[in-house]
Amino acid sequence: MARIKRIDHVALVVDDIDAALGFWRDALGLELSHVEDVPEQESVVAFLPTGESEVELVRPTTDDSGVAKYLRKRGPGMHHICLEVDDIEEMLQQLKERGVELINETPTLGTGGKKIAFIHPRSTQGVLVELYELSPQEPQIRLERARHLAERVVARGRAMAVTTYAFLRGLRRNGEE
Amino acid sequence: MARIKRIDHVALVVDDIDAALGFWRDALGLELSHVEDVPEQESVVAFLPTGESEVELVRPTTDDSGVAKYLRKRGPGMHHICLEVDDIEEMLQQLKERGVELINETPTLGTGGKKIAFIHPRSTQGVLVELYELSPQEPQIRLERARHLAERVVARGRAMAVTTYAFLRGLRRNGEE
Repeated sequence: MARIKRIDHVALVVDDIDAALGFWRDALGLELSHVEDVPEQESVVAFLPTGESEVELVRPTTDDSGVAKYLRKRGPGMHHICLEVDDIEEMLQQLKERGVELINETPTLGTGGKKIAFIHPRSTQGVLVELYELSPQEPQIRLERARHLAERVVARGRAMAVTTYAFLRGLRRNGEE
Repeated sequence: MARIKRIDHVALVVDDIDAALGFWRDALGLELSHVEDVPEQESVVAFLPTGESEVELVRPTTDDSGVAKYLRKRGPGMHHICLEVDDIEEMLQQLKERGVELINETPTLGTGGKKIAFIHPRSTQGVLVELYELSPQEPQIRLERARHLAERVVARGRAMAVTTYAFLRGLRRNGEE
């Protein structure tokens, strides 16, 4: 039988990441690990680890995602709870056998290569529950994301250097004229 | 500056503890540590530990508590998130200085002698946040509660033994007549 290991994160839907950080980071003192644009979830997500779990602030970036509709209908607040499981396929099978309604009958890939699946709130008395299994690829995918981000920053730095150089050269020329 | 240590629990409001246990305990496999009638919170609470946190199922036992009104208005679902803090008085002071609206300006005593305080959802983009500090009295209070419960069970056992004995004696007498 598959086993739940811990609460991985609690996701809060917000309409303004900065305003929410004003409470969670600045007033409460949680550390902000990073903010990430997650196009496949049509959201920007801020990650604030505490103990062995995270508080995640989710702001929808489109109008028609599940999170966007939730925000419109219920306003900002708690959105879902994510539990780490040791074997997600086995857990999904176990839930199906007990008549639990699943949103994802097989796991999908979340941010950083996580294997995830959602359980329907109809089977949980109104709570959206996400299951997550650490996949062997996850550390590698996280590393590649970080590398890709670093390369973009370097490339942007180079582009800025070129622009600044051209600008300064223009100034010098104007001065020489 | 006071520090948040971990997510202590996530509280879910339910209209039926047994139905909720059908999912959280029976299908998902979380362990049920105990179910407790908490008159000061006008609720019955089921505690399901996972990792360093707990999932708590809360069923209102009166009609006019905050949880009862929440259940009537929004239906069952996620109710609040509780964070453990190393120094609750200092944290409340720190939050007040940053303009955060508090439901409890000073800590109150929760189940098992916990020092707790709630932050108003108006200051957190719709999330009811509970703060909790482990008090030095908590282990002692928990022990006394357990002892009291054990005594009640023993007393009930004795009462049942007396009743059963009287019943058997009655049967024997009837047989002898």
